[in-house]
Order: sequence, then structure tokens, then C-alpha cells
Amino acid sequence: MGDSLVEKRNVYWHTGQVLRTHRENMLRQRGMVLWLSGLSGSGKSTLAHALEAELHALGRLTYTLDGDNIRHGLNSDLGFSQADRRENLRRIGEVAKLMLDSGVIVLAAFISPLRAEREQLRAVLGADYIEVFVDCPLAVCEQRDPKALYAKARAGLIPEFTGISAPYEPPQKPEIVVRTAEDSVAQCLAQLLAYINERTGGLEVSAARC
Amino acid sequence: MGDSLVEKRNVYWHTGQVLRTHRENMLRQRGMVLWLSGLSGSGKSTLAHALEAELHALGRLTYTLDGDNIRHGLNSDLGFSQADRRENLRRIGEVAKLMLDSGVIVLAAFISPLRAEREQLRAVLGADYIEVFVDCPLAVCEQRDPKALYAKARAGLIPEFTGISAPYEPPQKPEIVVRTAEDSVAQCLAQLLAYINERTGGLEVSAARC
Repeated sequence: MGDSLVEKRNVYWHTGQVLRTHRENMLRQRGMVLWLSGLSGSGKSTLAHALEAELHALGRLTYTLDGDNIRHGLNSDLGFSQADRRENLRRIGEVAKLMLDSGVIVLAAFISPLRAEREQLRAVLGADYIEVFVDCPLAVCEQRDPKALYAKARAGLIPEFTGISAPYEPPQKPEIVVRTAEDSVAQCLAQLLAYINERTGGLEVSAARC
Repeated sequence: MGDSLVEKRNVYWHTGQVLRTHRENMLRQRGMVLWLSGLSGSGKSTLAHALEAELHALGRLTYTLDGDNIRHGLNSDLGFSQADRRENLRRIGEVAKLMLDSGVIVLAAFISPLRAEREQLRAVLGADYIEVFVDCPLAVCEQRDPKALYAKARAGLIPEFTGISAPYEPPQKPEIVVRTAEDSVAQCLAQLLAYINERTGGLEVSAARC
């Protein structure tokens, strides 16, 4: 917006509120929350960041919420007790809801092991909550062990570690299942993109933004 | 994005991460947080929503954080004790930081009466924190009393009400001061728009989005 553009307009005050749908139309996309649930090492973050890069290249506005940007900031006051883990996910769900309202496609990558907590997220986010089960056998995750956490958990150094000493309750009716032990990253991405594309149906990004 | 577009691309996985600057370039704007501080009834929400409408009309992506969308969701577990008020603002600051990272222009309308708390916000948000002092004499705010809160506070029904029984510490070096008792909404808006325009300098919104 140049000065001229501001000056040319005589009316500065619109009484109508800007709603999510207005922002979505401006962005030519539909806001949604893809919630990636799965064991540590299943590939949630890898998929989220790869998907984000792909969507960005297609002109989509996305944001990835993960441990890196949540645990050091908003939830830096929380530990890993059951109550704190529940509060951790509750707050992330509420942030996702605000971002959704801003029109953004939110990618959330969190183990989120408990069915009841995921159902709570679905209740808060409604039809825009898209559960992605990042399905990968424990043995494969443990072999990958990218952060050497399984080794520590087996050595008893991390209490209540999901899959080892704390339960992971697999989603029963996820919107999407990706199988990272069987399929390549490219295949999983194609699957996710096809779903998003279907949901966003007909909202072409303008050439100017591609 | 059509199916054809997805299919035509052979590489699904980019290793490069999508950064704030990439999103900003796509949006053709710079993310920032306009933090409106002022007494109850000073005009913070009115200005925020009017500014949002104006920016939207100019093709800018904005989001307004205020009591309505924060107190019922993310901070529904907080009351109004000193500690809870501090935690309320801390969390809002962290949400604003995430949204800023998504490229959005965030408008935050909260009384935020204490200097120390606002300095904390500035520390968290850095150079993107733009303090807007919505300056209006208490007598005028009390006369407006849009939610009849001053009447209740004077009757002793609301403890620690800012301006009556709790302090409001005026910003000492705000980036912007708008005077809602002296200037019209249109004048205050023009002032805010000029500032944002200056900061966003040179990033014209494409015709396709206007």
C-alpha cells in the first residue's frame, strides 16, 4: 500500500468486522489444522516441515506448531506431569484455533498420545481438525531414534516415555493415515497434499503469488 | 492449486525450512504487533477493529487479539489476581510472537496497565513490538463507560479496576500516541495507517489481491 492508496480512500472506518471467511478469500485458501499424532521418531516433524515447504511453493500460507516453538515460549512454564501434558495440548489447541481464525493452514506435530486429549482437540477445533496418524511401528521408531531418546528411555533415564513406559493410543478414526515405515516421504506428502487439495477445492492461487 | 499442479511437480520434498521472511514475501507485507494499551473505554477495541477493516481492504492479513477471543479460550483458566493478569499478558505475548512469525499483522487490544509487563512484551517481541498508547482522560472514559464497568467499579463491585482502584502507568516512550478524546476515529486511524505504511514501505499489494 503506497501513501497514494491511503490518501485516495476517503473512508477510513468500516463498521463491518473482518471475519475468517474474508481472510480466507483474500488468501484464496481454507484454514485448517492438520494435527500429526504419532510416536517419537515416527516422522511427524519431517513430514510437517516438508509439507510446509511444498504448500509454500504452491502459494499457501502455513504455520507449523511443534515442540521447538511451543515448549520454549508459550508453554515454558509447563513440565511433563500428566496435568502439564494435558495443559500443554489444551493451549496448543487454543493457539491453533486462533491461527485457524486468521486463515492459516496450521500443521501441528505433537505425539499427543491419548485418545481423550485428541477428542478434546476435535471438540475445540470442530470440522477443521484433521487428524493425521503418522503410523510407524515402535521397533522402527526405536531403530531411527533421531534424538537418542529411546536409548535413554530404555536406560530408565526418561520416565513415562511414550511407547516404552507410557501408552500411545492409536487414533481410531483419523482423517488420514500415513505409513512412514512402508512409504517414502514423497509418497506420504502426495497423500497429504491430495487431501488438502480436495478440501481447498477450487480455490486457485493467483498467478501473482506462485 | 489444482491436481494438475501437484502432479506436474516431481519433487515433493524441499529440505529448506519455510521462514518468516518467505511468508512475508508471499504476503507482501511485514509482520508486526501493534499493541494498544489504554484505559477501559479509551477506544482500543474500536480502533483495532476499524484498523483491521481498513488494512483488510488494503489487502493486508491481520488478526486482532482481545479479551473476547483470549479470555474464553487460551486463558479461560486464568482469573484476575495479579499473578493471573501477568500470566494472561505473558501468554498473549507468546501467541503474538507465533502469529508474527506466520507473517500476520497482529493487533492486540488489552489495557496492559503496568510498565514492567509491557517492557516484558517488548523483550519477547523485539523490534516488532509497536506500542500504541490509546490516550484518553479517565473522566472521558468514565463518561463513555460502554460496558458500565466504571459504574460497577465506583460502586465497589469490581475490585482492582484500572484507573479507579488499580494503577494505569502511561507508556513513557510509546511508538505511537493516539488521542481519542481530541481526535476522531478517522484521524486516529490515519495516524496508525501512516505508521504501518511507513514500516511496510515499498511492499505493494498485487492488484490481484486488492
